Amino acid sequence: MNILIAGGAGFIGSNLAYALLKRGHRVVCIDNFFIGTRNNIAYLEQENEYVFYEENLNNLETISKIMRKEKIEYVFHLAANSDIQASAQNPIIEYENTYSTTVNLLEAMRICKIKRIFFASTSAVYGDKRNIFLDENTVSLEPISYYGAAKLGSEALIHAYTYMNDMSSLIFRFPNVIGPYLTHGVVFDFIKKLQKDKRHLEILGNGQQTKPYIYVGDLVRAILQFMEQPQGVHIYNVGVESNTSVTHIADIICKELKLFDVKYTYTGGIGGWKGDVPRFRYCLDKIHMAGWQAEYTSDEAVRLAVKWAVKQ
Amino acid sequence: MNILIAGGAGFIGSNLAYALLKRGHRVVCIDNFFIGTRNNIAYLEQENEYVFYEENLNNLETISKIMRKEKIEYVFHLAANSDIQASAQNPIIEYENTYSTTVNLLEAMRICKIKRIFFASTSAVYGDKRNIFLDENTVSLEPISYYGAAKLGSEALIHAYTYMNDMSSLIFRFPNVIGPYLTHGVVFDFIKKLQKDKRHLEILGNGQQTKPYIYVGDLVRAILQFMEQPQGVHIYNVGVESNTSVTHIADIICKELKLFDVKYTYTGGIGGWKGDVPRFRYCLDKIHMAGWQAEYTSDEAVRLAVKWAVKQ
Repeated sequence: MNILIAGGAGFIGSNLAYALLKRGHRVVCIDNFFIGTRNNIAYLEQENEYVFYEENLNNLETISKIMRKEKIEYVFHLAANSDIQASAQNPIIEYENTYSTTVNLLEAMRICKIKRIFFASTSAVYGDKRNIFLDENTVSLEPISYYGAAKLGSEALIHAYTYMNDMSSLIFRFPNVIGPYLTHGVVFDFIKKLQKDKRHLEILGNGQQTKPYIYVGDLVRAILQFMEQPQGVHIYNVGVESNTSVTHIADIICKELKLFDVKYTYTGGIGGWKGDVPRFRYCLDKIHMAGWQAEYTSDEAVRLAVKWAVKQ
Repeated sequence: MNILIAGGAGFIGSNLAYALLKRGHRVVCIDNFFIGTRNNIAYLEQENEYVFYEENLNNLETISKIMRKEKIEYVFHLAANSDIQASAQNPIIEYENTYSTTVNLLEAMRICKIKRIFFASTSAVYGDKRNIFLDENTVSLEPISYYGAAKLGSEALIHAYTYMNDMSSLIFRFPNVIGPYLTHGVVFDFIKKLQKDKRHLEILGNGQQTKPYIYVGDLVRAILQFMEQPQGVHIYNVGVESNTSVTHIADIICKELKLFDVKYTYTGGIGGWKGDVPRFRYCLDKIHMAGWQAEYTSDEAVRLAVKWAVKQ
């Protein structure tokens, strides 16, 4: 099948591209290197059935042309500003890179009559609901970050486009995802900080922010397993039932870096920054009952990601 | 209070402007006459405390300048593409006129530190849920129109901006609204069609689309009653418990126009067009218990609107 990955040079996009190539698909990637990197795709460029375009997804005409030329049958939309901390200071980043990219991809699909999409949504659409298990039918989605708002707006668009154009759409609400080719986030930040200063680590918040981390390999396996769907919109929480605190991530990193004398200081507060949801728990019954389960726990996923990052 | 009405030359915006002026507020309106009309605001322009700017809300710099210059304290956001039928053919209208206007207004408010907003949302955020009474906590909002998607995306933005900037936000989910200064919609269309051809009326769908119509005066009264809210996001369904079928609207119009020999033909299908929700019922307990109730029934609202339109 001819597949387009929007955000194909990103952390998850590049891992997904590799898996789809190995399954025998032809993979066309678009990325503008806003967050994605050339390094992430270097190992893909030797593949025969791989094509890469450096383009901005908000250029509707160009995107439509690529879709037509490449005879795209399925779009995986993983393009977004995934650096939530950055957009907390400048919300327009989410408008341009998260919401508008969705608008333009869906418009191009409508124009080109492409009927299948996978969309990378997020736990951030739920907002700060610490005391309940979040399932796909949780009421009153109230995102507290501009990122979560742009993703929830994108989900709404997918509902309307799916209905209006008889599409089949798969939406996964990701938790934190971690693994090889990570481009940002807490693991990435801590390693960079410790490379600069081996004796001291500043941790945002009180370190007790506790979230489920899924290993990217598990996530990609879930995407492949569920990518064929009947007409309509299909939403799944995807994740692991365990979780890891920020302080515990620091411990794992120090151990892997063989640093045994690091002093942690905390900036304080229950979230890493305003708009950060400090804790959440997913109900994963829907995806488990449909036959998928993560292989790695949250701690194992963190450890694998750290091992990879340390090697680089 | 210095109030900004975005979409102030529109049907609801102009009615609201008049009511706020009569309450002693200073009213600054912005409109680009995309749907709003000069005729709607002609009677307002003689008021001392009324200022009008012809601007596009997507010009962030201009809007911020106006907010600062006019010392705006409260924003009423009624700017949108309210012609759902038009955007069914061209979804980008909703991106530009419904979603992006919200982004730019909220951004300008953030920059200018304005903390209070009223947002005109819609029953279309619920999607097609014919068999249940829709209350504010109904699960799985799945808009089937691009309009509903852009409004739901706007609500999501308001959640994030409210949390991030300690705002107080009031969201009303409007049903069909009707009354003086109407600019489009079924009443408007039928009168125009009957002025061209007094013997024949084409009705979109099977005529059995049945919706609650609220009189604009009732709606404006609700806005004024609830406009002061504590910090946070406050969502209300607003409407009437009765409703009116499209064929019954045609009957009311023919009676008012004294046309007794009109032959109706139906284009068929349960909706007027794809993306049209043919029937819905609101649960209004929340707003009723908070002390507001519509004065006019749906049929009465239609009759009042028709009487006004026929006089013009």
